[in-house]
Amino acid sequence: MIAGERRQSGKTFRAKDAATGEAFGEPFFAASDADVADACEAAAEAQKAFGAMPLGERAAFLRLVADKIDALGDTLTRRAMKESGLPEARLNGERGRTVGQLRLFADEVENGAWQLLRIDHADPGRTPPKPDLRLRMIPLGPVAVFGASNFPLAFSVAGGDTASAFAAGCCVVVKGHPAHPGTSELVAGAIEQAVAEAGLPAGVFSLLNGTENALGEALVKDPRIAAVGFTGSRGGGLALMRHAAKRRVPITVYAEMSSVNPVTLLPARLAEAPEDLARAYVGSLSMGAGQFCTNPGIVLAVESDALATFIATARDELANVAGQTMLTTGIQRAFDEGAGRLAKRAGAELVGYGKETSGTCGRAQVFTASADAFLADEDFQEEVFGPASLIVRCKDLDQVAQVLAGMEGQLTTTLHMNADDHDAAATLMPILEQLAGRIIANGWPTGVDVTHAMVHGGPFPATSDGRTTSVGTLAIERFVRPVSYQDMPETLLPAAIRDSESGTLRRIDGQYQL
Amino acid sequence: MIAGERRQSGKTFRAKDAATGEAFGEPFFAASDADVADACEAAAEAQKAFGAMPLGERAAFLRLVADKIDALGDTLTRRAMKESGLPEARLNGERGRTVGQLRLFADEVENGAWQLLRIDHADPGRTPPKPDLRLRMIPLGPVAVFGASNFPLAFSVAGGDTASAFAAGCCVVVKGHPAHPGTSELVAGAIEQAVAEAGLPAGVFSLLNGTENALGEALVKDPRIAAVGFTGSRGGGLALMRHAAKRRVPITVYAEMSSVNPVTLLPARLAEAPEDLARAYVGSLSMGAGQFCTNPGIVLAVESDALATFIATARDELANVAGQTMLTTGIQRAFDEGAGRLAKRAGAELVGYGKETSGTCGRAQVFTASADAFLADEDFQEEVFGPASLIVRCKDLDQVAQVLAGMEGQLTTTLHMNADDHDAAATLMPILEQLAGRIIANGWPTGVDVTHAMVHGGPFPATSDGRTTSVGTLAIERFVRPVSYQDMPETLLPAAIRDSESGTLRRIDGQYQL
Repeated sequence: MIAGERRQSGKTFRAKDAATGEAFGEPFFAASDADVADACEAAAEAQKAFGAMPLGERAAFLRLVADKIDALGDTLTRRAMKESGLPEARLNGERGRTVGQLRLFADEVENGAWQLLRIDHADPGRTPPKPDLRLRMIPLGPVAVFGASNFPLAFSVAGGDTASAFAAGCCVVVKGHPAHPGTSELVAGAIEQAVAEAGLPAGVFSLLNGTENALGEALVKDPRIAAVGFTGSRGGGLALMRHAAKRRVPITVYAEMSSVNPVTLLPARLAEAPEDLARAYVGSLSMGAGQFCTNPGIVLAVESDALATFIATARDELANVAGQTMLTTGIQRAFDEGAGRLAKRAGAELVGYGKETSGTCGRAQVFTASADAFLADEDFQEEVFGPASLIVRCKDLDQVAQVLAGMEGQLTTTLHMNADDHDAAATLMPILEQLAGRIIANGWPTGVDVTHAMVHGGPFPATSDGRTTSVGTLAIERFVRPVSYQDMPETLLPAAIRDSESGTLRRIDGQYQL
Repeated sequence: MIAGERRQSGKTFRAKDAATGEAFGEPFFAASDADVADACEAAAEAQKAFGAMPLGERAAFLRLVADKIDALGDTLTRRAMKESGLPEARLNGERGRTVGQLRLFADEVENGAWQLLRIDHADPGRTPPKPDLRLRMIPLGPVAVFGASNFPLAFSVAGGDTASAFAAGCCVVVKGHPAHPGTSELVAGAIEQAVAEAGLPAGVFSLLNGTENALGEALVKDPRIAAVGFTGSRGGGLALMRHAAKRRVPITVYAEMSSVNPVTLLPARLAEAPEDLARAYVGSLSMGAGQFCTNPGIVLAVESDALATFIATARDELANVAGQTMLTTGIQRAFDEGAGRLAKRAGAELVGYGKETSGTCGRAQVFTASADAFLADEDFQEEVFGPASLIVRCKDLDQVAQVLAGMEGQLTTTLHMNADDHDAAATLMPILEQLAGRIIANGWPTGVDVTHAMVHGGPFPATSDGRTTSVGTLAIERFVRPVSYQDMPETLLPAAIRDSESGTLRRIDGQYQL
């Protein structure tokens, strides 16, 4: 779907039922290099009009996209269920999150503070004379968005990357995930309608389908693309980063890639409620077949009777966990392989399994290892995407700190604690701040609120660029850049930085003014 | 100078008198790989204490650095004059800018809004329950700063990159520019004293000397370095970007590299004052031997009698421009070669020369070419670092727009205009916003005010990352990253995001509050 035109030529592929792996329904057409170029050219042409759209109209456009997706209703849920294997309640919730974040970004566009408006008035009497300088953020240009498999709505065609790019005033070319092409087409149709009803050029949005890596590569290499949003595997993200760095004009890939989200159970809290913690842990690691970026892949605790109780309870709890359909047969296979590697690492012991599974379901499983074994093999840190987790038994709190300090960058890290653990927690905080983009107290990392203070990001390899977030309103800042206007006549200044304007947060001669 | 220790071993080199190319004075010791590792390790160890320093104390430290540099007085000016060939008044002004920007960043640290403090209160009644989320920016970690040759004070050891990294709470390891090792040592000594007097660990700052590219490469590859600030050549910047992208943990290089800063003379204004414009142009292009990042390397205008007058006046004015000593013999040689290449391009015609020069002086020179010739050879866009410039003669305003739209990214672009030119200017503005980080009206680009609304940045290849600036208070944002705290007990929260705090701009439940 290129700038409103549905092209039906080239190689075809079909959607697969996640539960059976069987192809079904109408064929989808893989985009050619010429399709990529046409979509990017249309985006570049539409960029001037879309980027210059008054913020109120841009906000209305985002709300219109949300309304059109809402109007898809059950049709969308049913299609996404079949393609992803995710249950109805989860997908209805995810649709709510998707339209909710579009509406949140609409509000954010209108708030306008993200433009970082700054005015420094002239001082002709200074030596040398001080010029009048005014700053605002402008859209970076067309953004390539890669749909993620694990959130077929909230991080796919009209997901967080698209919403924040649109909010910033950037046209979007989506590379749809081949695991849910029908879902992608429905959502793309909703965006297409909104683009048309808003009177925008059709090039504001295109969707490219395909199953080959070459499609994503061509998109990232297209000179008209100014930035990339990606959520997926570490290998995929690293490949896109390499392509982007080698361009004649290098660009930034905002890739959200890999995280095991270490959860630390501090001693006093663990002693207080080992069974409750174990039940919540098993619930979190098996939710959605463990296919969350923030799945608790590693739990750390100091050896104790309470830890033994936690492990025993987790084993019992696991035994009742039924297998859930995974997103694709490829993901299910990769999960089995990853969990198999984890099981064979020196020092790894099985804690327990979920119920036996068949077909494309993932079987929940938990392992344990001593911190000594963990520290001896850095591959223990490898993310196993799916319902698997590792409990690392530490000798003491110093060893907990040592393990955390030696870990790769993470999206989240969690402390379970009560008041008696606060001193230990205070000691760990600087390590946790270095480790992750979000630090959670007494919760589980699965569950990412879309709001102003959310950070869904973190040091490499959790993301390619730990200075940003892909969820929450701060995500808009990924897609803008500053321009300064020096001694510009008022009539040529953008309205937002004229003296006569008000209503938006601005910094005037150093002072913030609402 | 590694964490307060002066190491005197390894290969030596000596400073050179810029005016003669002759070596003079005491030897300097080139840093070994072990020295790089030690400096980075000391920075990593000092990072925790420096990053956690209360903002008031961090601001006081920045002011102390400024005071210590001020105290160097004439000793510093004289040494910098000899090493750089720059005149006394310029270097005294540059010292003022250097300490001024340290003090501006001290104020900025105290202002605190750069921490992007955000609080979203919990809503336990929502479905699902909304957690309490709080966000702040933390320091990225130790920063490697590459001293620039052309600003031996303001963009070298204690220049804009170091000031903004310190302001963000990042330790700094400087790779000193070999063209001014004595100047670097004096300034490093001032920082060292400030670090000691502030009671900070000595690893907060180190200076590494050397003449080989391998030193910079080792520094960028060191795993403890979290970001890089660089101002210099395009080749140098691109090499550092490649090294940084290939690291196990890739990092961002903020490289300010190359810009020809196109200046457009719109017809009505040109007709009004061709001689005045020509005189100001020659003054700007020859100032400081043309060694500003923002030197006006290209002037665009529509063919007219007024343009002929402008060119003739520039020729006459140039004839009176005396050669000035360039920063190094290497830079002088590269200037001669670059200007020679420009002179030989198809369609280039000489407008005129400055006075004959000898030794290490750069001879001012201006060329002209038709826009047709310019458009036929993209190498016309190559920056010639030094007092050379090209006047591009366009057929009409459409061709002006075509030339500007086809240019590489720039630090600045300028319009000279009067009220009769405003319609033409309005048409060009969207092109100029895409082209550069700063748009100047009726001025000359040389001169970069250090303030809140300054952008000294721009699309590649002007910089590696057009989303940032290396001058002005917004530069601090390059060296921080966000962390979100979820449901964290008040006692474990950073003070700035506790409910009880006030005095700093914060965004609470979506509303900005001062």
